[in-house]
Amino acid sequence: MNKIITIGREFGSGGRQLGKLLAETLGYAYYDEEIIEAIAKRSELAEDYVRQVVENRIMTYSPITVANTLTASPGDSIYAINRSIFTAQTEILEEMAQKSDCVIVGRCADYILEEYKPFRLFVYADMETKMARCRAKGEDDAANDKELEKKIRAVEKARAQYYRFYTGRDLSDRLSYDLGVNTTGREIADVAAAVAALIRAMQ
Amino acid sequence: MNKIITIGREFGSGGRQLGKLLAETLGYAYYDEEIIEAIAKRSELAEDYVRQVVENRIMTYSPITVANTLTASPGDSIYAINRSIFTAQTEILEEMAQKSDCVIVGRCADYILEEYKPFRLFVYADMETKMARCRAKGEDDAANDKELEKKIRAVEKARAQYYRFYTGRDLSDRLSYDLGVNTTGREIADVAAAVAALIRAMQ
Repeated sequence: MNKIITIGREFGSGGRQLGKLLAETLGYAYYDEEIIEAIAKRSELAEDYVRQVVENRIMTYSPITVANTLTASPGDSIYAINRSIFTAQTEILEEMAQKSDCVIVGRCADYILEEYKPFRLFVYADMETKMARCRAKGEDDAANDKELEKKIRAVEKARAQYYRFYTGRDLSDRLSYDLGVNTTGREIADVAAAVAALIRAMQ
Repeated sequence: MNKIITIGREFGSGGRQLGKLLAETLGYAYYDEEIIEAIAKRSELAEDYVRQVVENRIMTYSPITVANTLTASPGDSIYAINRSIFTAQTEILEEMAQKSDCVIVGRCADYILEEYKPFRLFVYADMETKMARCRAKGEDDAANDKELEKKIRAVEKARAQYYRFYTGRDLSDRLSYDLGVNTTGREIADVAAAVAALIRAMQ
């Protein structure tokens, strides 16, 4: 069975960068944006819409604005469309897991790929660190600190809701991951090297 | 500055064993029971009483039954006696931190030794695993599952209260540790080897 690492993360915690570096160091495939593209292709829905559903919200948008083609007809409920996105996502993650060792960021992959016994990371940091990382990445340059903090909390709340909706679990429950990594005040490259050493030692 | 590892843990999570193995593997000193003995000696209080205070409760016992000598007089309030235990504990932990690299289990060491920038571990597991480990250690052989679960929750609640009382922090807040390690379904020896690899890679 291929080795799978799934990564849950707080917004601005460096989880995505950590995932990329882990994949590079361990020689695993890395999946993140590719998943959204693949879902859009398979479900024949607009990529932007899929991104909204997968990354942020559960039930929004008017069906009229959603479909690239008539596969998802305007008569379909948003609920049904979102379900079909989750179904496509499930299929795609399973194909990825079957192809090679891989690192998957977000997407309820820990739940969807449970039978592959993934090593489940959760990456987090304090608010100050997360805000500094968002600033460094150029997220919302115009926002003042209060607005940026509000945005971070909103993204995290949406992710938690999405996770709960599809898995019935609490994203912040430490039992839903194997290792919780606090990146506060640390370089992500250092953290990635250390976590790679831990993962190698466990294999 | 010496390298310090502090370990917070759930009851039955294997945190103590993990700490011992980490210390062995890394060549650090290991402090656990020694701390209670040293506090009892320094504060001239009965070792059993110190154990109760340090491990479980904040304000119990009658002062009459507490003192080995008259250093803590029957007139002292329990509050004052418990404070003096915490003061002795603080001094002892600082002496240990100054002596050599070390692993310290519990005792609010992460808070007391904050300026030494300890690597703060939190070790946890699901209830089933914790109960199985308690059974294997011979904790409460007579208890049925329900009683054992109740005991585990009571110990954890008492530890959390103690931690909050002296540190003002929440023991279950993941920001209060650097690495959260889920030992559910794993051998502690394997986890210890992996965490030692991570700590070596970070140094």
